[in-house]
Amino acid sequence: AKLWGGRFEDSVTDAVERFSESVSFDKALYKQDIMGSRAHARMLAHQGLMTVSDRDSILHGLDEIERRIEAGEFVWRMDREDVHMNIEAALTDMIGEPAKKLHTARSRNDQVVTDLRLWCREAIDKIVASIKQLQVALIKLGLNNEGLIVPGYTHLQRAQPVLLQHLLLSYVEQLERDVGRLVDCKDRMNFCPLGACALAGTGLPIDRFLTSDALGFTAPMRNSIDAVSDRDFVLEFLSANSITAVHLSRLGEEWVLWASEEFGFLTPSDSVSTGSSIMPQKKNPDPMELVRGKSARVVGDLMTLLVLCKGLPQAYNRDLQEDKEPLFDSVKTVLGMLEVTTEFAQNIAFNHARIQKVLPAGHLDATTLADYLVNKGMPFRTSHEIVGRCVALCVTKNCQLSELPLDQLQGINSIFKEDVYDFLGVENSVDKFSSYGSTGSECVAEQLNFWISKLQIDQTENEKTE
Amino acid sequence: AKLWGGRFEDSVTDAVERFSESVSFDKALYKQDIMGSRAHARMLAHQGLMTVSDRDSILHGLDEIERRIEAGEFVWRMDREDVHMNIEAALTDMIGEPAKKLHTARSRNDQVVTDLRLWCREAIDKIVASIKQLQVALIKLGLNNEGLIVPGYTHLQRAQPVLLQHLLLSYVEQLERDVGRLVDCKDRMNFCPLGACALAGTGLPIDRFLTSDALGFTAPMRNSIDAVSDRDFVLEFLSANSITAVHLSRLGEEWVLWASEEFGFLTPSDSVSTGSSIMPQKKNPDPMELVRGKSARVVGDLMTLLVLCKGLPQAYNRDLQEDKEPLFDSVKTVLGMLEVTTEFAQNIAFNHARIQKVLPAGHLDATTLADYLVNKGMPFRTSHEIVGRCVALCVTKNCQLSELPLDQLQGINSIFKEDVYDFLGVENSVDKFSSYGSTGSECVAEQLNFWISKLQIDQTENEKTE
Amino acid sequence: AKLWGGRFEDSVTDAVERFSESVSFDKALYKQDIMGSRAHARMLAHQGLMTVSDRDSILHGLDEIERRIEAGEFVWRMDREDVHMNIEAALTDMIGEPAKKLHTARSRNDQVVTDLRLWCREAIDKIVASIKQLQVALIKLGLNNEGLIVPGYTHLQRAQPVLLQHLLLSYVEQLERDVGRLVDCKDRMNFCPLGACALAGTGLPIDRFLTSDALGFTAPMRNSIDAVSDRDFVLEFLSANSITAVHLSRLGEEWVLWASEEFGFLTPSDSVSTGSSIMPQKKNPDPMELVRGKSARVVGDLMTLLVLCKGLPQAYNRDLQEDKEPLFDSVKTVLGMLEVTTEFAQNIAFNHARIQKVLPAGHLDATTLADYLVNKGMPFRTSHEIVGRCVALCVTKNCQLSELPLDQLQGINSIFKEDVYDFLGVENSVDKFSSYGSTGSECVAEQLNFWISKLQIDQTENEKTE
Amino acid sequence: AKLWGGRFEDSVTDAVERFSESVSFDKALYKQDIMGSRAHARMLAHQGLMTVSDRDSILHGLDEIERRIEAGEFVWRMDREDVHMNIEAALTDMIGEPAKKLHTARSRNDQVVTDLRLWCREAIDKIVASIKQLQVALIKLGLNNEGLIVPGYTHLQRAQPVLLQHLLLSYVEQLERDVGRLVDCKDRMNFCPLGACALAGTGLPIDRFLTSDALGFTAPMRNSIDAVSDRDFVLEFLSANSITAVHLSRLGEEWVLWASEEFGFLTPSDSVSTGSSIMPQKKNPDPMELVRGKSARVVGDLMTLLVLCKGLPQAYNRDLQEDKEPLFDSVKTVLGMLEVTTEFAQNIAFNHARIQKVLPAGHLDATTLADYLVNKGMPFRTSHEIVGRCVALCVTKNCQLSELPLDQLQGINSIFKEDVYDFLGVENSVDKFSSYGSTGSECVAEQLNFWISKLQIDQTENEKTE
Repeated sequence: AKLWGGRFEDSVTDAVERFSESVSFDKALYKQDIMGSRAHARMLAHQGLMTVSDRDSILHGLDEIERRIEAGEFVWRMDREDVHMNIEAALTDMIGEPAKKLHTARSRNDQVVTDLRLWCREAIDKIVASIKQLQVALIKLGLNNEGLIVPGYTHLQRAQPVLLQHLLLSYVEQLERDVGRLVDCKDRMNFCPLGACALAGTGLPIDRFLTSDALGFTAPMRNSIDAVSDRDFVLEFLSANSITAVHLSRLGEEWVLWASEEFGFLTPSDSVSTGSSIMPQKKNPDPMELVRGKSARVVGDLMTLLVLCKGLPQAYNRDLQEDKEPLFDSVKTVLGMLEVTTEFAQNIAFNHARIQKVLPAGHLDATTLADYLVNKGMPFRTSHEIVGRCVALCVTKNCQLSELPLDQLQGINSIFKEDVYDFLGVENSVDKFSSYGSTGSECVAEQLNFWISKLQIDQTENEKTE
Repeated sequence: AKLWGGRFEDSVTDAVERFSESVSFDKALYKQDIMGSRAHARMLAHQGLMTVSDRDSILHGLDEIERRIEAGEFVWRMDREDVHMNIEAALTDMIGEPAKKLHTARSRNDQVVTDLRLWCREAIDKIVASIKQLQVALIKLGLNNEGLIVPGYTHLQRAQPVLLQHLLLSYVEQLERDVGRLVDCKDRMNFCPLGACALAGTGLPIDRFLTSDALGFTAPMRNSIDAVSDRDFVLEFLSANSITAVHLSRLGEEWVLWASEEFGFLTPSDSVSTGSSIMPQKKNPDPMELVRGKSARVVGDLMTLLVLCKGLPQAYNRDLQEDKEPLFDSVKTVLGMLEVTTEFAQNIAFNHARIQKVLPAGHLDATTLADYLVNKGMPFRTSHEIVGRCVALCVTKNCQLSELPLDQLQGINSIFKEDVYDFLGVENSVDKFSSYGSTGSECVAEQLNFWISKLQIDQTENEKTE
Repeated sequence: AKLWGGRFEDSVTDAVERFSESVSFDKALYKQDIMGSRAHARMLAHQGLMTVSDRDSILHGLDEIERRIEAGEFVWRMDREDVHMNIEAALTDMIGEPAKKLHTARSRNDQVVTDLRLWCREAIDKIVASIKQLQVALIKLGLNNEGLIVPGYTHLQRAQPVLLQHLLLSYVEQLERDVGRLVDCKDRMNFCPLGACALAGTGLPIDRFLTSDALGFTAPMRNSIDAVSDRDFVLEFLSANSITAVHLSRLGEEWVLWASEEFGFLTPSDSVSTGSSIMPQKKNPDPMELVRGKSARVVGDLMTLLVLCKGLPQAYNRDLQEDKEPLFDSVKTVLGMLEVTTEFAQNIAFNHARIQKVLPAGHLDATTLADYLVNKGMPFRTSHEIVGRCVALCVTKNCQLSELPLDQLQGINSIFKEDVYDFLGVENSVDKFSSYGSTGSECVAEQLNFWISKLQIDQTENEKTE
Repeated sequence: AKLWGGRFEDSVTDAVERFSESVSFDKALYKQDIMGSRAHARMLAHQGLMTVSDRDSILHGLDEIERRIEAGEFVWRMDREDVHMNIEAALTDMIGEPAKKLHTARSRNDQVVTDLRLWCREAIDKIVASIKQLQVALIKLGLNNEGLIVPGYTHLQRAQPVLLQHLLLSYVEQLERDVGRLVDCKDRMNFCPLGACALAGTGLPIDRFLTSDALGFTAPMRNSIDAVSDRDFVLEFLSANSITAVHLSRLGEEWVLWASEEFGFLTPSDSVSTGSSIMPQKKNPDPMELVRGKSARVVGDLMTLLVLCKGLPQAYNRDLQEDKEPLFDSVKTVLGMLEVTTEFAQNIAFNHARIQKVLPAGHLDATTLADYLVNKGMPFRTSHEIVGRCVALCVTKNCQLSELPLDQLQGINSIFKEDVYDFLGVENSVDKFSSYGSTGSECVAEQLNFWISKLQIDQTENEKTE
């Protein structure tokens, strides 16, 4: 019989039971549920709503239940619907009468959302830690490839030469904003709904500040209806995850491209590649394809939750039970994506020789040449046009800008002098970039130092282990 | 060691293995995978690419593997990556050498998409059958509530009186188009990719028509690259599911509303309701809330697949592995929604007395009154305005249109005669509707007969069992 | 001819021009584009990259262009592609040579993202202001309906009595978190990309801190590739908007329900209702239906941007041009939703008499009765069961809990005493709630005072104007 | 004053009017609205609900209104809310009394959905025609590049050699299924809602079959509530568009890749490329980037409509007004994507020399070598492993499979004979593919002929014009 069965004559049908149960997935909240019950029992005893002896029975019972769950000895029962009822009913089976007092001044409505906030808080900490590991891996990858110049792309067309370190740091920046979003989300969600009960609060003399403190929340939530109704903290968390996932999908795309025969810029080690069941020559960068692909489910999870919450009136509606699986999936997926991207970053080699060989193609120094003309006092639009003509000449003659003899340059415009060759060629070009945040080696070193210090990266160790 | 491991020196890391494996979910395809392998082995033997004795070993081996899987004796190994490799490797463990010939002229790329099409085909049949059951349940619900007039709503404001049967049939119509979409989807997907191999076909003398026929496909797919690259059949399927789910979410919303104290139009039986852990008086229509809520994940699953496929170049990309979980989830969810909605429909009672009592409110007969005036030759816009004034009078006097005495009606316009009272009151009003497809009782009877015959509903049986 | 046309021989086809142009929508950025150009020109002159006289020509030219745009005299040309080229080319038409220097050390890549950040910053301020207006309207609505008790719902079933003020404050809380998200988003995006140029920075001696300061940014962005590549600030903004939109959709649903004949809890005034072209009696709460409906496009806009960014490699890709329309639509829609919800809140009357009449239905005092038993020392689970039996008795006898005579209550359990009637009936019940954040009148007054002071609401004025 | 204003005292506020109006976008339905009114007026006259003279006044008035709209002389008034009211009110202004009869037995609820179905029908025809043009362009592109072998990819790694024609035909196949989906959608939606009125039908003696026939619908819709409530036809249409858009995004990605310096497989002509405002050497394949990017808004539009419809009870809700803008945007975007992709296909050149030069890289003939061994009787798994070892040897020696001397091959396995060299090298390899639907030249010729005949492509003309 259900714990709410007082006025019910029939039990629900099997199909309804199967369709409605949540214990198959919300048992993932067992630790948070027990944590919440401990705090609640202590508060009830402190407020005189339960004897100290009842409290102690409950606490010991909960310890034992937690032990059993972690040992795999606990039997989860679908007919007990959810994690809350499973634990409470098991507690009653174990300690009897005192267990019936645990649900005083509490409802599953405030209980589940307390559990969920505790779970999210911890999940955010894990994701933030994983992001930091990836940031460190990207920076170390840069340190191990110092001085490597690669083409910078716009429109997937070669645009300007950049230091690989500079490119890698652009991902580190994006990940840092991801951390910021998660931390803000955590701060905003870290308020305690416990004590909101079904939706209206309670008339019993509880102390919500006590439970809030005990559970590490900033404060109790101010409005009991709000406390049980809203899932905006999950929406915000899944939004943050989606943005992180999109960031990783972009890195995934880039590395899949770079691992292709046509680019040939990087080679993953065997330990992060897979082969083909039919084509013996294949070596596929599958982990990064999956990182790119799995971003889709993180976005899908967010979409599920937005559709779910749309148009529900206050306060708790059973629809909200469906908040958990997308949340769990989003967290698991993002953690996996981060972990695997980190491993991939630790297991790729950049093909310096190949990159150096193909680097001259694409007139990557054209903008530097335009800067040269601007430095000579020519308006930018004019210089842009002149460089355009130089490039057209190169295309006709199938050569590099640096290979155009001075007289031919001067044939286009007499402003060109011998010093122009200091601006041509990718090495010269990359060296000229000097504005704050640009790809010039000094600017990049400055960025690197910022991150090494911020992330407390130990470079000595780095050199040893890699 | 992986089956594709020929040129590989290191095995993949644990994290990559965990992140990349698909066997934990694609083992759901075991039946289709074995079905495909049987057809493939028979074709290979027929074409002389395998001896009859090898074929028979393989067929017996596959039988035994299928038996073990269904008996729960089969050990799925994550290091064997996916359902295909698990079955093939187990076959090799069992029968040795002949098993190594099974993958002739086949790749996992065409194999997985063959499995998936077979699976979808069957899933569509199941969903179509479930939709028909719901249609039957809705019609029986109508038959059991013959003559019941309920308010028809627009903007959730009472608009016109309708027969409950008419309202229920509107859902039956929507579900029928859902069936149409699924059947079209199945017809369009029922082409055989097997033999497309990795992407280019094969040089071995296979016969793709043979396997296509054996597996019940309409024909082999015409282009091997298309065969392994595209997942549009999954996208179409998930789109059809999403539309069905949205339809069900609307029914869910309606029944949740109708079960509220404020409407009070229907009461679910205990077997499809749940109670509250804190509020002893509650009886919640949870199954329909969950139907409404679970529509969200069906939409989320579609979204996942759209995001997944966006921007992938031809042909197979590992991202596509992520097509399965959203597909499986969508199908499972829609089936559950249909089943539970059917059970709900079988377990609700409409509160005739209550409905009859509140029906007069809302001036549901106002449009019929406007029709009365049009029948007298008045332009519709004028009649609309006059009825507007009658309604305003009712609001002032807090009465029904039928309660306005003739002189007051004539005070508004002299066109009103004694016969106006044949058009007022909800019973009179509903009876007047006579256009094709309208809510008049004859029109509804016509619709009902159409559906009873189309769905072959046995009414005698109905009367007995309910 | 395009400004980038140097090496091009043919111009693009009409279809491509039509498909690629963005000026038809990005002209909305004209103010930000001019603002950015002013700061850029001043910086160039300060750094000696342009003469003071050129700078002044440019500044005067930009003033004139802004004036023309705002006066509707500016001719936007599709063949000039976008807002940037339109303004720069018009400037060149107007002041000649100096205009050609404006694009020095700048690219459309950093220019557009600077414009966009400036635009978003302002849009966030507008939305935050609109949210605050809605919060104030909700609180005033509460103040004007002091003491009104309404049913609190879970599962759309009546659960517990709550003060209307308490319910309205739950929306105020949600909106406050929406403000928090927007402010965090603004802080995170308020960094200056200008000077990142195409993607690598520049070799010209610019000062990015100067432009950053002039434009009110916190600092220049640290990495030039990141600066032009990422749109996570738009994703975050659209996520925040989606959450706000979902919140408003819930309020929309609630008020549409409450305006129905069946609930009958509120009546919108004519100025926020619409009628029917066919049913003269209708009075529809359309604005709140549209608020609910328009939440969909805000979610759709977010989805567009997530799909857009998925799988793009660094750095700028033309796909990113598509970021603007969803952003503009999201902001316009959310602002409209907020404004109309505020007006609706200012134009509804709660039907006190009706609410009071129907309030006794639904046994809203059942939980309070359970609290009564707990206060007497009974374990909660036991009390829940006993109250369940009392409710069942009421259902049988079709009466309220408060109408059960003491002997019948004692027939269920002897613990009931005469004082039980102090806990029964909705007024008694609502008064008992006393926990922090609960619906008891003191708790609600405390919440109200918090918000009145935080939002600086002048109550005197309120009483006068309403 | 609004046409529904009978019982209203105040007019709506400006903000509500602005928020609620739809004429700014639904005026796009003017042609369908007038078409529907013509059919409706003729039917009313035929049924004696209107005189022939009234009908003729109406028909002439509608002609004049249509003329004015198309000449840009019609003044759309926001205070008249929508396209229906604008046209009807203008008709009343023009012809007076008879116009007031036009809305007899009709409501905006059935009127708008009739307009929408007519509009969608036409839009589908346009999209289907555009798809066919793209299919023709792809086939002509193939015909112009006969015999060109390109690498076929899986995981973006080179897998097997394929004919370019084969690859292009894979897109033609996908587009053909897109056509199928659209045609099915059109067939399913082509039923007439007119006469369903507000939701319940009408008591006036109309003939719905007459209007249905006149408007080219298959039949009237069977259930009036369904007729005005559902938007599943829009959902299905937007789903079909989303799948098409995803297909095009994939082609977009592929061609963007192929246009990169690294691939270098294709060069777009100037007429479908754009340059950079800062980098004079750039030539970007923007149209295909935008095709890829714009797929996002098509998906977003679908998402909007799914969220919109979720959880709405029957029948018409004002939310549904929001169905139009996503629909219009989806159609416009998909048409643009198709048109531009067609133009791009007509304006690219494949770089045969470059492709031929890089083709040997990647061991594309490895599978053919495995087939060689299978032909010799070796089990596939064994042959796969042996070829794996051959490839490993090539990697070590940095050579092609065809460059391995026979003794070295025999060192791996003695089964290799001199005839092995007939299977090595991409030309040999591609020639070996012979299974139905594979990339062998005969198979591809067969596919080509199928499509040339199906799409009625005139090859003579082709040769002349290109």
